[in-house]
Amino acid sequence: MNGFIYNIPVKVYFGENQLCHLGEELSKFGSRVLLTYGGGSIKKSGLYDQIVAEIEKAGLTLFELSGIEPNPRIESVRTGAQICKDEHIDVLLAVGGGSTIDATKFMAAGACVDHDPWLFLSERAPIEKALPIVTVLTLSATGSEMDNGGVISNPETQDKLGRGAAAMLPKVSFLDPTITYSVSPYQTACGSADMFNHIMEVYFNTEQDLYMLDCFMEGMMKTIVKYAPIAMKEPDNYEARANLMWTSSWAINGFVDGGRTQPWSCHPIEHEISAIYDITHGLGLAILAPRWLEYCLDETTLPRYVSYGVNVFGIDANLEPMEIAHKAIEKTSEFLFDTLSLTSTLGELGIDDTNFKVMAEKAASHGLDHAFKPLSAEDVENIFKMCL
Amino acid sequence: MNGFIYNIPVKVYFGENQLCHLGEELSKFGSRVLLTYGGGSIKKSGLYDQIVAEIEKAGLTLFELSGIEPNPRIESVRTGAQICKDEHIDVLLAVGGGSTIDATKFMAAGACVDHDPWLFLSERAPIEKALPIVTVLTLSATGSEMDNGGVISNPETQDKLGRGAAAMLPKVSFLDPTITYSVSPYQTACGSADMFNHIMEVYFNTEQDLYMLDCFMEGMMKTIVKYAPIAMKEPDNYEARANLMWTSSWAINGFVDGGRTQPWSCHPIEHEISAIYDITHGLGLAILAPRWLEYCLDETTLPRYVSYGVNVFGIDANLEPMEIAHKAIEKTSEFLFDTLSLTSTLGELGIDDTNFKVMAEKAASHGLDHAFKPLSAEDVENIFKMCL
Repeated sequence: MNGFIYNIPVKVYFGENQLCHLGEELSKFGSRVLLTYGGGSIKKSGLYDQIVAEIEKAGLTLFELSGIEPNPRIESVRTGAQICKDEHIDVLLAVGGGSTIDATKFMAAGACVDHDPWLFLSERAPIEKALPIVTVLTLSATGSEMDNGGVISNPETQDKLGRGAAAMLPKVSFLDPTITYSVSPYQTACGSADMFNHIMEVYFNTEQDLYMLDCFMEGMMKTIVKYAPIAMKEPDNYEARANLMWTSSWAINGFVDGGRTQPWSCHPIEHEISAIYDITHGLGLAILAPRWLEYCLDETTLPRYVSYGVNVFGIDANLEPMEIAHKAIEKTSEFLFDTLSLTSTLGELGIDDTNFKVMAEKAASHGLDHAFKPLSAEDVENIFKMCL
Repeated sequence: MNGFIYNIPVKVYFGENQLCHLGEELSKFGSRVLLTYGGGSIKKSGLYDQIVAEIEKAGLTLFELSGIEPNPRIESVRTGAQICKDEHIDVLLAVGGGSTIDATKFMAAGACVDHDPWLFLSERAPIEKALPIVTVLTLSATGSEMDNGGVISNPETQDKLGRGAAAMLPKVSFLDPTITYSVSPYQTACGSADMFNHIMEVYFNTEQDLYMLDCFMEGMMKTIVKYAPIAMKEPDNYEARANLMWTSSWAINGFVDGGRTQPWSCHPIEHEISAIYDITHGLGLAILAPRWLEYCLDETTLPRYVSYGVNVFGIDANLEPMEIAHKAIEKTSEFLFDTLSLTSTLGELGIDDTNFKVMAEKAASHGLDHAFKPLSAEDVENIFKMCL
């Protein structure tokens, strides 16, 4: 069991009507605010007006950068960092899901250096400082509101790379479940698949760590299985939206890792798909996860599948371990493809095997030889083929 | 479901050999350190020498206050606060369990005001500032290492009062499970009963909140049931000590509360016992808990007992709800009195009903009319009698 440092000083306002604290929190960092967001959905929902009103009420000066893409691109980051420099921005306010928050993190870091922010990702240039970041979450999925990492795409190089740094951790995040009432069933499903996978990436791990954290992960997976379908059927069910929202943050803020440091598997593999085909990250993960589980199952990895099956899906603990494992994989597929109604193959998305070899090689280079089940480029290619 | 603010910016070094970071962390707050501790156990174990060596290596100036009592007294707080003022202390380093850390919190706050620190407790005088606090935990129990509260006794008035304030939250806590290898089976049992009860106080609640947090609480209770007996039998079992240690912190740092604000029950009742009879807090809680559970069970409170019985103790969910509830109470008694071998009655501790009436009135005044099951002074007296 490894030691670890726990350090997550993000302040979170959770619940309805918390945005009244937005102005007071932003003011702690200065007066010049760069508001970042994606498409027009926050204008349609009225959230934009509400936020602008809070900023005005606090007497702050507002700058804006909209149009941040899903699978956010380095060009947006460059633009944002430049605005921060030109306008002497004091604090960034990201309003959106993981894409907007991720991009904003690299803008905040980019504002503090003279070089191209892409170097943070391509060359792992040091990230020692960043402007303070406040977030208002609009989609429960990536957990970016409470972690220090982000993933950025570079269409020119067909790269999609991730990076974390303490300086990029949001200072304050506003999590109002009612803001996610307008998230479509499909996006709710993709977000739920994403957070489910974040937990699986840590749970399926050969580095034994705290049983207490295993229980937490099982509890979060049970929560997603219970509430994702409710949120899809009843978009304004507060209980469902609240459970998904707080789970999204805790799935990936580092808490459940304890001392586990084993590289993740499905995420680096999926990033190669969405880097080229620009599909929704959570959907890519959903397609991959059951195949990856199937591919990794052997006598060594078996015990994890058993506790997963028994404690998350309530499979009878008295069955043969290998039978429990197979049932657990089946339950995972049922949850993702039947309950969440997600597309189950890459083929249906119009993706064929043209790029599998190159994608597999790139994915395998992200430490997969030290993953839960060590995977070579050939293994990854086999998993891609299982997804067709 | 209520909203809430989550804000726990304590940095935790968890695991073996983390004390090498002590000097660097203390130095962030200044150079004059007041080391506080209880009896001589940290000298016997070698921990004291190790800490002094780290402080000297960092070139810091060391002051000391030892002899902080279990059920810490206001007199120690007064002495510590005075040393802070006289010696211009920059940071307090509490090395111990909950008693030492609790007392140190009020010293740190007392150093910043001109009045008697007892007023923080008796009159709820404002706590706006406190000197920074660093802790090295030696006993898994109260969770004081990661929360902002403390409980102080005043033998003159026979009061034992609690108070929390953001300013008293430790900045950094060192949690090294190997330091607790020397904790006796009895103290391990008392500490485990204490943390188990912290979770019960939130779990048995009529304010419905996040299912995800219910799962976390059930996971922590399962963790204690699983690992407390192992730690008692094998004092140097790292896995057991580590699970108990991290559970002690998360049981009461505010995370599992979500938006629940209902007053606790067993804690204020127990404080009246240990205020007069100076017994170990965790032992008092263990004696009270099953009687309190029994007293509070009715058709309204029943559902919580069912989920507790099924999810923590694995009782068959197909039984009649009331049968599950009774079995759950039985399992709780078995765990506390058989597995943990704790004394099961107040009578065995030489306590009779002489003071029950006065104690019950004091306890009931701490908001028990709004507790999980509303309790009058007469109810509390009945519960005391069940403990004889």
